[in-house]
Amino acid sequence: MRFGILGTGVVGKTIAARLAGLGHEVMIGTRDPEETMSRTEPDRYGNPPFSAWHEEHPKVGLGTFAEAAAHGETVVNATAGAVSLEALEQAGGDNLSGKVLMDISNPLDFSRGMPPTLLVSNTDSLGEQIQRRFPEAKVVKTLHTMNAQLMVDPAQLGGGDHTVFVGGDDAEAKATVKDLLRSFGWSDIIDLGDITTARGTEMMLPVWVRLFGALQKPLFNFKLVR
Amino acid sequence: MRFGILGTGVVGKTIAARLAGLGHEVMIGTRDPEETMSRTEPDRYGNPPFSAWHEEHPKVGLGTFAEAAAHGETVVNATAGAVSLEALEQAGGDNLSGKVLMDISNPLDFSRGMPPTLLVSNTDSLGEQIQRRFPEAKVVKTLHTMNAQLMVDPAQLGGGDHTVFVGGDDAEAKATVKDLLRSFGWSDIIDLGDITTARGTEMMLPVWVRLFGALQKPLFNFKLVR
Repeated sequence: MRFGILGTGVVGKTIAARLAGLGHEVMIGTRDPEETMSRTEPDRYGNPPFSAWHEEHPKVGLGTFAEAAAHGETVVNATAGAVSLEALEQAGGDNLSGKVLMDISNPLDFSRGMPPTLLVSNTDSLGEQIQRRFPEAKVVKTLHTMNAQLMVDPAQLGGGDHTVFVGGDDAEAKATVKDLLRSFGWSDIIDLGDITTARGTEMMLPVWVRLFGALQKPLFNFKLVR
Repeated sequence: MRFGILGTGVVGKTIAARLAGLGHEVMIGTRDPEETMSRTEPDRYGNPPFSAWHEEHPKVGLGTFAEAAAHGETVVNATAGAVSLEALEQAGGDNLSGKVLMDISNPLDFSRGMPPTLLVSNTDSLGEQIQRRFPEAKVVKTLHTMNAQLMVDPAQLGGGDHTVFVGGDDAEAKATVKDLLRSFGWSDIIDLGDITTARGTEMMLPVWVRLFGALQKPLFNFKLVR
């Protein structure tokens, strides 16, 4: 299948590498591909520049947000939540129309200092904002409640016995996403309902951040015991 | 030990019964004890009136908020979050001063319809509001992320292999609360840090409510796999 991944951060690269490894045709989208490739310094978290990653993943294409979205039969929003709507505007509504749009972003606000707060919460969510802005896209909120490494390889923690949530308005789109999640190794997939359930899952981020602080490691996840 | 439990709802009664069963001296506090005892109809959720419950738990005392708080060496806020500050004002700062105040309430707002939203979130929490209003109390936020039956008897789900969170500014108060949680059967207790961590755990309620809808039962909980 063809995937367009929006965002060249850790999440975008991790998803892109995993999808390419599964044999999919993947293009990563960024605001300015030339600028992205020209970076030679590690990012602020110490990760190698994109060009170094790209040398190790030559099958993954790089293009503008619009080119990546046009390429994908399924599009993944892996941009930072604070710029997601802007990035999706650049991707273009026509390039998202009728497609599954997996939204794995979080509306984290680092402008108030650490720990981050949420830019939208309680009575609305980023998932809903995206669905409202692009009504022809089939938005499915998922995977945003855990570390990027776990998103694509849940088996590396507790034998994969933990939970991923799915929310969205389109049943067929959710079925497509669930199949994809199973191909990553997920077995415990809970479908919470429509896209308004993104409020609940996005609001799990503040406790995630505190758990990251308390446990001093990012490889943890919630298992829904029931 | 002597406990004062504020609130005669399901949570207050469940905690009170469990504590009395463990041999503690328990008094439940309510706004107007005479009015509470005079109710003869089931509540809006179909639970029997307080007097019927009290007949089955004769060792549990009933008094005003102030009498229950004065009675307790540890005080438990089990009122509805929307009225917690008011109930605690009636309990009286002097009756809370120097004591462990276990806050197991949630600031749920049912006024906008279902599912409920939160009255405070993101940049503040009810736990913090209570701590600010009663600086001499040692507020510990805990147990508010699961159903009342599970709070006091985690073993009835998954052999008790799931997680309870604790947050508060006073290390000694948290140690007291952790001992109490262990006496209920809890083994996986995660101390998230200070009272500001209540933001994260209170913000878990929206996904809890959606899970209740998706799973069609209240007996579930999060296990933190790590």
